[in-house]
Amino acid sequence: MRQVVYSVAMSLDGYIAGPRGEADWIVIDPDIDFAAMFARFDAILMGRKTYETMRTAQGGGSMAGVESYVFSGTLRQADCPGVTVSDDPSHRVPALKQQSGKDIWLFGGGVLFRSLLQSGLVDQVSVAVIPVLLGGGMPLLPDSPKRAGLQLVKHQVFAKTGTVSLEYAVAQ
Amino acid sequence: MRQVVYSVAMSLDGYIAGPRGEADWIVIDPDIDFAAMFARFDAILMGRKTYETMRTAQGGGSMAGVESYVFSGTLRQADCPGVTVSDDPSHRVPALKQQSGKDIWLFGGGVLFRSLLQSGLVDQVSVAVIPVLLGGGMPLLPDSPKRAGLQLVKHQVFAKTGTVSLEYAVAQ
Repeated sequence: MRQVVYSVAMSLDGYIAGPRGEADWIVIDPDIDFAAMFARFDAILMGRKTYETMRTAQGGGSMAGVESYVFSGTLRQADCPGVTVSDDPSHRVPALKQQSGKDIWLFGGGVLFRSLLQSGLVDQVSVAVIPVLLGGGMPLLPDSPKRAGLQLVKHQVFAKTGTVSLEYAVAQ
Repeated sequence: MRQVVYSVAMSLDGYIAGPRGEADWIVIDPDIDFAAMFARFDAILMGRKTYETMRTAQGGGSMAGVESYVFSGTLRQADCPGVTVSDDPSHRVPALKQQSGKDIWLFGGGVLFRSLLQSGLVDQVSVAVIPVLLGGGMPLLPDSPKRAGLQLVKHQVFAKTGTVSLEYAVAQ
């Protein structure tokens, strides 16, 4: 079955974006094979805030060759060309996982991750730990009432920037 | 000069203790050489809360063969046998670093780390990343107005538990 993978860059102190959504602290290690990373996925899941940030930054919020799903109770499909809007991740995501296809990238943010994690719908967490302490921002996982066990399945160190990639399976 | 090292266990989402101070999520990998880790230090720095937690758990808050310093504006020396109480880390810590001796373990918690980090008094951050998402608790670094750059100097993976040890130098 297709895996849902929460794949993000994170500061050592657990933030995926700065207090004002900043991403300027994310160093791009030249040895990271982004093409291979993207080739693993053919669908992307986003929450509303992440979508709106991407739409502003990139003018669209969709990516070529990839189906994008935006989960929101307020956005209207007619206003979001190129992406599929849904207000029901707890039904939509299991249906997507049942379809054939590549793995599914849970692109962000933390609020959607928390919701899907609590529903047992996240299979892996893949974190690129950037060597910086932000001191505040958007957390990897916002306040959540339940712990989740993880199992380390892969790690890789990128020496040029000190980025550490850690891949975990979520214990179900 | 003696190095001040903030050495702690951390959940993947950036907490060094649970919401009620819990440490039961910290798995102890049998391959971690704690003796070597402890042998590096002959002095320990703590904030008040960490000291009070240790004193309750261990009945004393001091460790054999190690000088313990507790930073607090409210604790009285007379009430804290076996440790040195100081309300002035910004003078005490530089003086300690000038003395001869082994490295200095900044044992916790995050509030003391933030204070010493902002004063440029922390040389290294050494984190044992435990494979768990806590969803809340005591942060590695509480809200802090300034970013701090890090440089990865060492890493080690402990396969039996999936614990990942990451050691960074603090960019000054």
